[in-house]
Amino acid sequence: MNFNLNESIEILERTPQTLAVFLSNLSSEWVTCNEGQGTWNATEVIEHLIEGERTNWIPRLEFMLQKGESKPFPAFNRFSHIDDSTKMSIEQNLIEFKKIRHENIEKLKSLITSDVQLDLTGVHPEFGPVKVKELISTWVAHDFTHITQITRVMAKRYREDVGPWKGYLGILNKG
Amino acid sequence: MNFNLNESIEILERTPQTLAVFLSNLSSEWVTCNEGQGTWNATEVIEHLIEGERTNWIPRLEFMLQKGESKPFPAFNRFSHIDDSTKMSIEQNLIEFKKIRHENIEKLKSLITSDVQLDLTGVHPEFGPVKVKELISTWVAHDFTHITQITRVMAKRYREDVGPWKGYLGILNKG
Repeated sequence: MNFNLNESIEILERTPQTLAVFLSNLSSEWVTCNEGQGTWNATEVIEHLIEGERTNWIPRLEFMLQKGESKPFPAFNRFSHIDDSTKMSIEQNLIEFKKIRHENIEKLKSLITSDVQLDLTGVHPEFGPVKVKELISTWVAHDFTHITQITRVMAKRYREDVGPWKGYLGILNKG
Repeated sequence: MNFNLNESIEILERTPQTLAVFLSNLSSEWVTCNEGQGTWNATEVIEHLIEGERTNWIPRLEFMLQKGESKPFPAFNRFSHIDDSTKMSIEQNLIEFKKIRHENIEKLKSLITSDVQLDLTGVHPEFGPVKVKELISTWVAHDFTHITQITRVMAKRYREDVGPWKGYLGILNKG
């Protein structure tokens, strides 16, 4: 096991600015391309990350700390941002993500003040008992997952353009 | 085909700062972890990116423009940075990457002044004839590949820590 709260916060606090540097003011082709019907483009991934900040990580952490194993926390709709009709530009979303992530890291620091709390448990609606440190680890791994997704989706735009180098670039052949 | 020179430059010029924001001043555990023996940590990936700037992309482009198909360009040792004993910190490497990438984008802009040049060809020592635009597309896709690699390697540190969420996070199970 490698989990460490401070090291987790290091990643959580870097992700929004990393994505802002990479994705701001790009040609629209880069941020609207996807991997085919039903898949997300970079803009939609940022919307999903914002939605996670609003409804998943901190709300679930608060729920766990308040209710323990007495009640499963509410299920999280991973696709709610797709149904949201109030679309903002990716630049606006990147600013919003940075703002809400910053607020949530402050909440995380105020909620977790002792290592003992990291082993407290709650009940996931599908998985059953889960620990606070597993939720926070997942928050971090979820950032990595979606940075990877964004770069993979964008890479595939050049899948044919690279010509014979395609065989060297495993990313172009991954789902 | 999606290749566009200006859109390619947009990515090439963002990669160093993106990685600098994500990787600077992290706990050493994040930048020294790898996927097992013979695999690269984040620090080694940055060294590899610098090596590519020095010996691969622009040198090959210049070779293609000068020699055409008259002579294959020299093979590129993708592991030379591993043998280099003059190790710098990841922060030093990130600064060096930004500097050399900036210089190389300036060279790219000065070398390619007409769309006609994008279809010029050279000879890859393994693949045979390749086009200038394929080389530049590969340079871009190579950036995406290694951003993905870095995030995947770092994500795997928390492979067990996420507990039952592991099944939701495909990145943790990828090679």
